[in-house]
Amino acid sequence: MKTFLDCYPCFVRQALEAARMAGADEQGQRRLLGLVMGELREIPLDMTPPEMAGRIHRLVRQELGDGDPYREAKQTSTQQALALYPRLRALVDGSGEPMDRAVRLAIAGNIIDRGMDLDYDLWETVERVLAQPFAVDDGAALRAALSGAQEVLYLADNAGETVFDRVLIETLDVPVRYAVKGGPILNDATLEDAVAAGVDRVAALVSTGSNAPGTILSDCSAAFRRVFDQAELIIAKGQANYETLSEAGPRLFFLLQAKCPVIARDVGAGVPVGSIVLKQG
Amino acid sequence: MKTFLDCYPCFVRQALEAARMAGADEQGQRRLLGLVMGELREIPLDMTPPEMAGRIHRLVRQELGDGDPYREAKQTSTQQALALYPRLRALVDGSGEPMDRAVRLAIAGNIIDRGMDLDYDLWETVERVLAQPFAVDDGAALRAALSGAQEVLYLADNAGETVFDRVLIETLDVPVRYAVKGGPILNDATLEDAVAAGVDRVAALVSTGSNAPGTILSDCSAAFRRVFDQAELIIAKGQANYETLSEAGPRLFFLLQAKCPVIARDVGAGVPVGSIVLKQG
Repeated sequence: MKTFLDCYPCFVRQALEAARMAGADEQGQRRLLGLVMGELREIPLDMTPPEMAGRIHRLVRQELGDGDPYREAKQTSTQQALALYPRLRALVDGSGEPMDRAVRLAIAGNIIDRGMDLDYDLWETVERVLAQPFAVDDGAALRAALSGAQEVLYLADNAGETVFDRVLIETLDVPVRYAVKGGPILNDATLEDAVAAGVDRVAALVSTGSNAPGTILSDCSAAFRRVFDQAELIIAKGQANYETLSEAGPRLFFLLQAKCPVIARDVGAGVPVGSIVLKQG
Repeated sequence: MKTFLDCYPCFVRQALEAARMAGADEQGQRRLLGLVMGELREIPLDMTPPEMAGRIHRLVRQELGDGDPYREAKQTSTQQALALYPRLRALVDGSGEPMDRAVRLAIAGNIIDRGMDLDYDLWETVERVLAQPFAVDDGAALRAALSGAQEVLYLADNAGETVFDRVLIETLDVPVRYAVKGGPILNDATLEDAVAAGVDRVAALVSTGSNAPGTILSDCSAAFRRVFDQAELIIAKGQANYETLSEAGPRLFFLLQAKCPVIARDVGAGVPVGSIVLKQG
């Protein structure tokens, strides 16, 4: 992406947040920001934002001596989302169009994102996304693809959002493989986070083998790349999966909220920040 | 302030925005970000955010070879605010409490701030601020101080906001000296910007002699420091004036919107971002 300079302030903010979550004092926070800004000065220009984020957060974890600074934040998000689970289920079960509603809920859950500087109420977000028109709506193509599919590969995004994904998976009438990160990166869901959300009860869990945001295939395990290559239908959640796979073809359907101008611009001309997107690759 | 690490992402974002406004290409933008991040690594820990911003933006202007990257943005803001001027006047003239309303309008105008990453509609902001309760309201003390004052020193903040200040100045029944920056810094109002807003018709204009944000007295001219020292009543607009003068005593009344968590926290415990504030020093 040509626009990654827009991501620099976000990386600096993320590093500061991670340092605080790991309990670093002010001097430690400052040292980490210094290292991250040094890295941002040196980093090759041709990296995508998720590749850069992967590299930055490896540095953050290493410098902080904390393999998962977002652990508690992820647990909290999962608990908050699980508390809503009965209401989410009721929304789907009480609907004449359960698929449409479950897709919207999965997109609503995408608001949970520690990579962004967002201030939101989770239930208000649910209500907003249920009522909001799509900025891009390839829902008809998704329904057609689902009706013929033997299996769905579902690329997870963040912890907590996993609970919303679970509701969608429960609504799909087809077996799902749910792909999570191979190790901690930001608040992205790992195997542990998926299990905490109960996704293991409704889908087969698979690790991408990578701990970069999104799905950088060259960074994934050979085993995951085989799963990916053979998948007939792929649901990909969130901005980072869109950033890394938007050119990967029509097997992919991206479900996300456009939470920053860089992504909104890339999704389509005139797409405003805050839009909900269901886009075929 | 102990919390200035929170300001680092903002400085990086400001530098990128300034580079783009000055027409720098991507390579130039990146070079500037590199320099700014280098400066942020070296900068002494005991500087206040406005001092840091002053230093950062001096570097920005120097590197870009543009003495005022925000020139056009300031002109646009002033034009947009002037277009609202008749409606602002009508709001005050039609009110049973013209002073209260003019104070609120001056605070509404404080939304115009290129230092922050804000997405707002100017008229919606006016309507919000007219209806919103104050998070801190020392309005009674301000009215008492005004009733006995011979003159008011009014510390300006941003271009465009100047038009809203003008409406308040027109409503005050006392002569006003309106203090603007000595040179370009962000979108802060200079002499030229105050004249474009017509403030020269309703107040005596005076330069602080400094081109740092806020009012850093040690960086101001000796002439301005005399004006400041002798002032009996000072109205200080915006966050940066609050950051630099919040300890300067009860002659000062701060009118602002709390647009970031660092300021909101400092204004008072539990004061949320988005609050309107009328606070005596």
